[in-house]
Amino acid sequence: MMECNDKNVMAPGSVVGIIGGGQLGRMLALAAARLGFRVHIYCAAENSPAFEVAAKHWCAPFDNKQQLQDFANSCDIVTYEFENIPLETVRVISAITPVLPDINALNITQDRLHERAFLTTNSLPVAPFMKVDNKEDLAKAIGRLGNQTILKSRRFGYDGKGQIALSSATLSPPDVLAEIGNQPAILEQKINFDREISVLVLRSANELENYDICENLHLNQMLRRTRVPATIDPDIEQQAILMAQEITIAMDYVGLMAVEMFYCPDNEEQPLIINEIAPRVHNSGHWTQDGCIIDQFENHIRAICGWPLGSTKRHNDVVMTNLIGEDILNWQEYAGNTDSCLHIYGKKEPRQGRKMGHLTTLLPLTYSKPPSGSDENNVVQLKPSS
Amino acid sequence: MMECNDKNVMAPGSVVGIIGGGQLGRMLALAAARLGFRVHIYCAAENSPAFEVAAKHWCAPFDNKQQLQDFANSCDIVTYEFENIPLETVRVISAITPVLPDINALNITQDRLHERAFLTTNSLPVAPFMKVDNKEDLAKAIGRLGNQTILKSRRFGYDGKGQIALSSATLSPPDVLAEIGNQPAILEQKINFDREISVLVLRSANELENYDICENLHLNQMLRRTRVPATIDPDIEQQAILMAQEITIAMDYVGLMAVEMFYCPDNEEQPLIINEIAPRVHNSGHWTQDGCIIDQFENHIRAICGWPLGSTKRHNDVVMTNLIGEDILNWQEYAGNTDSCLHIYGKKEPRQGRKMGHLTTLLPLTYSKPPSGSDENNVVQLKPSS
Repeated sequence: MMECNDKNVMAPGSVVGIIGGGQLGRMLALAAARLGFRVHIYCAAENSPAFEVAAKHWCAPFDNKQQLQDFANSCDIVTYEFENIPLETVRVISAITPVLPDINALNITQDRLHERAFLTTNSLPVAPFMKVDNKEDLAKAIGRLGNQTILKSRRFGYDGKGQIALSSATLSPPDVLAEIGNQPAILEQKINFDREISVLVLRSANELENYDICENLHLNQMLRRTRVPATIDPDIEQQAILMAQEITIAMDYVGLMAVEMFYCPDNEEQPLIINEIAPRVHNSGHWTQDGCIIDQFENHIRAICGWPLGSTKRHNDVVMTNLIGEDILNWQEYAGNTDSCLHIYGKKEPRQGRKMGHLTTLLPLTYSKPPSGSDENNVVQLKPSS
Repeated sequence: MMECNDKNVMAPGSVVGIIGGGQLGRMLALAAARLGFRVHIYCAAENSPAFEVAAKHWCAPFDNKQQLQDFANSCDIVTYEFENIPLETVRVISAITPVLPDINALNITQDRLHERAFLTTNSLPVAPFMKVDNKEDLAKAIGRLGNQTILKSRRFGYDGKGQIALSSATLSPPDVLAEIGNQPAILEQKINFDREISVLVLRSANELENYDICENLHLNQMLRRTRVPATIDPDIEQQAILMAQEITIAMDYVGLMAVEMFYCPDNEEQPLIINEIAPRVHNSGHWTQDGCIIDQFENHIRAICGWPLGSTKRHNDVVMTNLIGEDILNWQEYAGNTDSCLHIYGKKEPRQGRKMGHLTTLLPLTYSKPPSGSDENNVVQLKPSS
C-alpha cells in the first residue's frame, strides 16, 4: 500500500472523515474519491445526500459519544461541511483523530460575537456592533447605533435565519428579541454596500492561495447567483485577498475558507467590510468546479491531507445559479443548456427554500471586467416554478 | 420526487446500474452522482474501486442469476465499463431493465472477427485479416497475408494480451497458436502507421456529438499517453469523425464509443484504418475530465439516461499520462505538479502493469496543431520507479 513518512501527509487510500452529509459533504466526498481516498460520513439526518457516495457512513446524533468514537477510529483525518457542530462533538473526535480546520476556527466562526471580536482584535474591518443579551442591552445598543441596524442571533444563523432589520420592524425591543427566539445576539449597523463579494482563500502548512474574487447576488436572503470575475477595481481586489489571507494566518487555519465582504465604493476610507467567515467550502465557491483547474472541494481535501495545493487558475468566466426548491423541476431545461454544467444533490423532496442543485454557465474568459449591471447577459433565465 | 413522463428519460434520483467496478466504473459513478443519480455496482471482484463511491453494490460472479436479477430489479437503467461481459449476463439483466449500449454492441465488439466483419460490411477500412481456428487455417493465412502479420485472439484481448507478432516470432505455427492459448483467432496484416488516434463519439436518441481527436502513445502495449489536439490534417480529422459516427449509426448505438484508428499518411488512398471499437468510456478519453466542459463519463451517463448531451467543447490542450504499477509511488511529486490534475483509483496494490491512476497536464489552448515530435514538451517527466 502507498505510504508516507510524514504523518501529517495522508497517502492515497487513507480514510477522510466528513462531519455532515449535505451537498457540501457530498461534493467533498466526490473530490476526495478522485484523489484515491476512502470517505466516511457522519451525519444525524437519514438519507443524507453524502451517504450515497461514501464507502461507509454513520447516521447518529452529534452527541452519541460511542458512535463518534467509532467513526473517529475509522478515519485518518476528519473535516466538516458546516460550522455549527457542537464543540463537544469535535472534542470527542479530536481526542482520537486530527480534525481540520481545527476547533479554534469553529469556536470563532460559530458565534458572531466571537467572530466580530476576533476580527476587531486583528484590526480587520467589520460593521459597528454591540452585544445584546437582553432587552436592556438592546435598548442601549439602539441608543448608540440607531435603528438603521440589524439584530442577529449569535449562533446558528445562515441564509438570513435569526436576523431582523430594525429599520423595517415595527416591533418594540422585547418583541424584536422574541422574534429571534430570545437568543444571545448582536446589534449591527446596516452597511450600505454596492455589492457582496466572496474571497475563497486556501491555506496549508506551507502554502497560501486564493481563487479569483466573485460577487454574490442574494434573493430572499439566500444566495441566488455568484459570478466571476467580480466587478471591482484591481487594487480593491488585492486588498480583499490580503484581508482574507490575514484571517487564515491569524487563525493558523488549514483548509479552504470563504470570507464574505461588503464592497462600499462610496466609503473611500474603508471600501471593504467583512460580513462573515465560513471555515469550510462554500456555496459561493461552486463555480470553481467548472471554471478552474482544481476546484474548492479538491483543494480543501488537499490542504487538510497535507498535499500540495492544486492550481486555482480559472479558464472561463462563470455564472453560478442556485436551484432552490421547485426550480429543480425544470431540470430537463437546465440539462439542455449549452455550455452549462448541471449539479444535482440527490435530495428527495424539493421543499421551499431547499438548495437542490446548481447550474454553472461558462462564458468566454474576459480577463477585463464586465460592465456594471450586465449580470444577466447570456445566462439561463430562471422561470418561476408554478 | 422528480419525475419524467418519457419512460426513456431518467429523472434525477433514478438508479443507474453499472456492470464492472474498476476505475472506469468508479469514474462513471462519480459522474452519475454529480447529476443526482443513485449508483449501484455489480462486480465479481472483491474490493472493487467503484464499490466505495456507490450507494449499493453486489459482489458476485457474472453467472449468478439470482444476484443479477436482484441487481437488475434495483436499477432503472444499466450500463457497463467493459465489453467482455458474458452475453448471458446481459440477457438476464435486459429481461428486467434496459441495458445501454445494447447487447448488439457487445456482441460485435467482444469478438474481433465479428467486429472486423461488421466494419467490412459497412465499407469501413480495416487491415486485411483472415479467420484462424486451427493450425491449418494459420498456415493458409500466413500463405496469403505473409508474416508481417499479427495473430490476435478473437476474445478477451486488451492491452496487447492475446496478441503475437509473427514477424518477430521464431515459433512454428502450432507453437504460435499455443502461445495465445489455442483460442479462435484472426491473423491480421501489420499496419505501418504514423500514429494512433482515438475518436470519442457520442450518440443519443436525438444527438450525435464528438470530442476533439486525440493521439495515443503506447509503451509495452499499454496506453501510456494521450494528447489533444492530435497532429493530423483537418480533412483527415473530419474523415475520422465521420467514420466513427457511421459506426454508431450502423449499430444504432447509444452512449460514448471510442474508436481507435491508425493514421497512415503515406497511404494516400486509405490514410485511416480502424483498429478497435470500445463500446464504453475509454482510457484515451480521460483527458476530457479536465480539458472539457462536460467529460466522457458524464456524457455517457447523459446519453444512456436520455438526457440532452453536454458540451464537448475543449478549453485547454491536454496531455494525459497513465500511472501504471509503481509509477503511483511518486504520487506526491505528481500532486505537486502545477497545472496538472491527479486522479487515483483507490486500488490497494500497485502490481506491475496495473493502471493505478492518471495525470492530466493542461497546456494553453493552441487551436493550431503542435509541431510533430513535440509530445514531451512541458509535460511532467515520468521517473522509472526503482
